[in-house]
Amino acid sequence: MISGSKPIPAPAPLAAERISLNQRTLGPEVDLATAVEAAVAAGFGAISPWRVHVEAVGRKQAGRMIRDAGLKVSGLCSAGFFGPGARPEDGREARHDMLEAIEDAAELAAATIVTIGGGVGADGDMWTARERLEAGLAGILDDARAAGVRVGLEPLHPMVAADRGCISTIAYALELATTIDPVGDAFGVVLDAYHVWWEPHLAASVACCQGRIDAVHVCDWRVPTRDLVLDRGLPGDGVAQPRRLRALAEAAGYAGLVEVEVFQRDLWALKDPDKIAAAAMAATLAHG
Amino acid sequence: MISGSKPIPAPAPLAAERISLNQRTLGPEVDLATAVEAAVAAGFGAISPWRVHVEAVGRKQAGRMIRDAGLKVSGLCSAGFFGPGARPEDGREARHDMLEAIEDAAELAAATIVTIGGGVGADGDMWTARERLEAGLAGILDDARAAGVRVGLEPLHPMVAADRGCISTIAYALELATTIDPVGDAFGVVLDAYHVWWEPHLAASVACCQGRIDAVHVCDWRVPTRDLVLDRGLPGDGVAQPRRLRALAEAAGYAGLVEVEVFQRDLWALKDPDKIAAAAMAATLAHG
Repeated sequence: MISGSKPIPAPAPLAAERISLNQRTLGPEVDLATAVEAAVAAGFGAISPWRVHVEAVGRKQAGRMIRDAGLKVSGLCSAGFFGPGARPEDGREARHDMLEAIEDAAELAAATIVTIGGGVGADGDMWTARERLEAGLAGILDDARAAGVRVGLEPLHPMVAADRGCISTIAYALELATTIDPVGDAFGVVLDAYHVWWEPHLAASVACCQGRIDAVHVCDWRVPTRDLVLDRGLPGDGVAQPRRLRALAEAAGYAGLVEVEVFQRDLWALKDPDKIAAAAMAATLAHG
Repeated sequence: MISGSKPIPAPAPLAAERISLNQRTLGPEVDLATAVEAAVAAGFGAISPWRVHVEAVGRKQAGRMIRDAGLKVSGLCSAGFFGPGARPEDGREARHDMLEAIEDAAELAAATIVTIGGGVGADGDMWTARERLEAGLAGILDDARAAGVRVGLEPLHPMVAADRGCISTIAYALELATTIDPVGDAFGVVLDAYHVWWEPHLAASVACCQGRIDAVHVCDWRVPTRDLVLDRGLPGDGVAQPRRLRALAEAAGYAGLVEVEVFQRDLWALKDPDKIAAAAMAATLAHG
């Protein structure tokens, strides 16, 4: 029977320069300059900035800041809210937002745009949300190609399918990516341990993503989990086995950056970006 | 592209006698006699008792109580905790529990034993949990057959995969059922709107369960959802579209009882079993 991912040999240890710091791991309010500084101080080789902070300084300045610090960009967070954000008649609002994200990603040389799809909303229904998502994504293929930017579809945990993102499984993300973009030069998949660890066909689904993996996020599932959004664990702080996910991705050919992305109230309560970055680096080296 | 379940014609209205009241909808502490009385008063045709309450009065007395009230039993909740409950060396503990459940279910003429699999625990890993689950379930096939009892594998929402049940998708439940019991005379699948509404391939997965659907649970996904266990909605109180799930199940040949199962602090706060039962009946007639 197929059931998750059998224990496999541990992959090679991660080099610090291959590890990327998701900006929000430091907290939602930490600005880009502070995040870049903390990432460099902790030895990260890359960062994943959030658009609100990129826009706060402007995309050109943001790009300079990151390049000057010697950092790569694993992913730009986040876009593709075609679900609830789209207006019924034409979806123009979400499309406009996605086009902005494409320009941001091109300027930052981001490996991908982390695209989570949007949710259903309080009054919506899943069929309509996914129908709009599929049409909306198809509508930006040419723009992404023209800009030489990748769109990374990230399955989010089904518990946030109503509120944040309705790409709920790896198989569905891959189906969207391959159907919209059979060539594979624009649409890929983002694998995040927190969101996909529970999948019964995890090993097979990751293997199917060969050539389409745009990013790997390491983080963990705490037991018990007390909040649907802000109780994510650092690698090693739960049962999601992020290293196993990395090993599966590498077995499928992935050789890119490994990003630590943790939204956690306890971690944010430390309030010191340098301390949080150092903790994230240590956890990722040990368990990512 | 395949994405959930397209709007389909509404199924025929539910007759009250086809609706079953899950005992815990009334609250975790309500005893069987009180629950039976509330179910009858609200016009339910069936009940789904919890084992702790069945054991409190003894299975023979429980069976008499339910039959004398003219109620059927849609499902016995719950068993099959092979995940974390099993001892490493032989899994005997969970097996013994399941054998007790089989005797209970035979005595109560339950349509199925609601089998949720158990979780991973705080120190476990998903591979080991599912490996034990699969072996444990295979080990009780002959016992279930001998007793003429059905084992209904219920996919629980992935957010409780670590704590309660690691049968996380319909496809995996069906894969377990068909692999362990190719004939289909003992192992089936339980479909619960709250747990599966988000599945990207919902329509196809339900259709594949033809001849294997042991129970249909109606309930809803509230937006926002504030708790991982105790914030479930009554039918109509969210975005899960329980009636659509029933329609899909009936299109796949299901003609059995439809159970309303809602664990919700706000509902339990009413404290009056008759009021809660009446609210559950009204919501199920309108949206189930």
